Amino acid sequence: MAFGWIDEQAAARRRAGLVRSLRPRPADSPLLDLASNDYLGLARHPEVVAGAQEAARTWGGGATGSRLVTGTTELHTALEHELAAFCGFEAALVFSSGYAANLAAVTALAPHGSLIVSDAGNHASLIDGCRLARGTTQVVGHADPDAVRKALGTHDGPALAVSDTVFSVDGDAAPLAGLAEACREHGAGLVVDDAHGLGVLGAGGRGAPHAAGLAGADDVVVTVTLSKSLGSQGGVVLGPARVVEHLVNAARTFIFDTGLAPAAAGAALAALRLLGREPERAARAREVATGLHARLTAAGLEAVRPDAAVVSVRAPSPEEAVQWAADCRAAGLFVGCFRPPSVPDGISRLRLTARADLTEEQIERAVQVIGGTRP
Amino acid sequence: MAFGWIDEQAAARRRAGLVRSLRPRPADSPLLDLASNDYLGLARHPEVVAGAQEAARTWGGGATGSRLVTGTTELHTALEHELAAFCGFEAALVFSSGYAANLAAVTALAPHGSLIVSDAGNHASLIDGCRLARGTTQVVGHADPDAVRKALGTHDGPALAVSDTVFSVDGDAAPLAGLAEACREHGAGLVVDDAHGLGVLGAGGRGAPHAAGLAGADDVVVTVTLSKSLGSQGGVVLGPARVVEHLVNAARTFIFDTGLAPAAAGAALAALRLLGREPERAARAREVATGLHARLTAAGLEAVRPDAAVVSVRAPSPEEAVQWAADCRAAGLFVGCFRPPSVPDGISRLRLTARADLTEEQIERAVQVIGGTRP
Repeated sequence: MAFGWIDEQAAARRRAGLVRSLRPRPADSPLLDLASNDYLGLARHPEVVAGAQEAARTWGGGATGSRLVTGTTELHTALEHELAAFCGFEAALVFSSGYAANLAAVTALAPHGSLIVSDAGNHASLIDGCRLARGTTQVVGHADPDAVRKALGTHDGPALAVSDTVFSVDGDAAPLAGLAEACREHGAGLVVDDAHGLGVLGAGGRGAPHAAGLAGADDVVVTVTLSKSLGSQGGVVLGPARVVEHLVNAARTFIFDTGLAPAAAGAALAALRLLGREPERAARAREVATGLHARLTAAGLEAVRPDAAVVSVRAPSPEEAVQWAADCRAAGLFVGCFRPPSVPDGISRLRLTARADLTEEQIERAVQVIGGTRP
Repeated sequence: MAFGWIDEQAAARRRAGLVRSLRPRPADSPLLDLASNDYLGLARHPEVVAGAQEAARTWGGGATGSRLVTGTTELHTALEHELAAFCGFEAALVFSSGYAANLAAVTALAPHGSLIVSDAGNHASLIDGCRLARGTTQVVGHADPDAVRKALGTHDGPALAVSDTVFSVDGDAAPLAGLAEACREHGAGLVVDDAHGLGVLGAGGRGAPHAAGLAGADDVVVTVTLSKSLGSQGGVVLGPARVVEHLVNAARTFIFDTGLAPAAAGAALAALRLLGREPERAARAREVATGLHARLTAAGLEAVRPDAAVVSVRAPSPEEAVQWAADCRAAGLFVGCFRPPSVPDGISRLRLTARADLTEEQIERAVQVIGGTRP
């Protein structure tokens, strides 16, 4: 029977306690949210909502076609110009998701005969980009510029190093300056995914590459998402204008995808303008994360020191992680739960996100619930 | 220098006349649009716009996380239930794009050791799904169930045939009944992309699989997009509940992507309800396509007989296709222009889309412009 084999996989998942299921949330959830990636608390900000609504009114429900046919509105172009200027890059290109942006950047910049050096902790979308690219991928140890340097030294021809700037599981930062140095020694390009850095790191939230002095460099390409700090949906590639022009002509997830919906572009643009006016939101997100980590550690929990707004707490096993998250939920706290196969090292954790709009009282309550429900 | 090789590619593109560039459109464009995929003319319908706006008001600018964490709202679930019921399938799963839905369906249903039989004319997103999947891909001739049967006969183990239902370049339909028969003879699954069928083909626009009697079959999986007939953004996989459950647990572009923005889900749901109330829109889109084809042919142009709402007109060369589309634009008509490398057979064409809301006068005007500017 067609698809018969998936029943065996389903049974194996059940035995291993690794079944995932969807849990629709209501609009007025009473849970305290430490699970979303809405780092700046902007997703439901009135100006962001108004940005989405105004864009839908002006442009309609969808972009109506590929960016190369009818799917580029003046709104998409405005978002690209303002985001590139904010982050300090020459040009920007908007995609329908961060996943699509990462597939585009890696595949279009790693042609046949090239080498891609990829960090072992990279996000699934970068890994899939490496797998789709015509170049050859070499995976190197986590956050290790020397390993990148060594790998690049073995190759003759176009080469690329690929890394998250902030790793999504543990929230630790990549050694960007070291990576850039290793790349430059070998004339290689550097592609980094700043999904968890934009809005949180750098001056006023300009991102990790900006903080590392890499913004606008002619050998650095940055991808970001509009769905985290900017409270919307979509992905963006930032880089030299010639790289963006190359993506317009060569990136399949750009050419063969419908353009981002106007409402998403409008919401992201409103959030970006808000962040420009209220740069203290970025510092506040970092402050919340640091405070959360300090209190968790003081409570005896094993939490990774956060480099951005993600705080990861180790759990003894996948089953206990799931139960812990369920117990938190029962006590009114929504936390993320990462477990195999979503964690590269096989270690299950609770994943907490620090939002800039959390109050001290809410942080204290969250720590009490997490400590009180620990396995 | 990093990325130096892209300048050589750019120069080669310029020499070949194949440079693509973005042309932002204003909200009040005076052009007659025969280029978008807004087949039912719903993208700017007041109910669809209101659906987007209401969703943004209720849920915010973004879904705030992966569908498995915070990104599944009750709105996503409502859209999934109503779309599955409309198309006649047990279950549905919403993605941020049709591209992501295709990557998910093909990769998650073609494990290591499996065979994927893929039509030579398939969309880029299905091709990339085949390339990402762990199974082995065999490409077969266009719209040829016997070739599919023969390929399946060579393999022992899980197998899958993959096809568009309506091919995006020429607008011709796949032989769905024949494909299903070939698959059933070999116990293989059938995955079809109905991006250009939903809203146009089948009773009231229920799609090509519904018209072929395949809706709800336990060995058929259908992907659709929310960005064409439904005037929004996003992609959906429709199929047996056990397949959807499998995707929730195994599909990387589902697990590691932010959920579709609420405004896009709301716009698509509003469009779906509208189509349910006004089923004649689907028939009208087909009627416009047929009428357009008849008049183009009568004017001596080489147009492919449309099976859905895409009408393709052959051009002598890429350069002449580009000039032809530019001349149409100068005369007030917006048409698509497909040329290498976006066309599998290397033949350049004008690509026209029939919208249900085009008037007879507009169709007549379009044919006059296209005929009057022919190379």
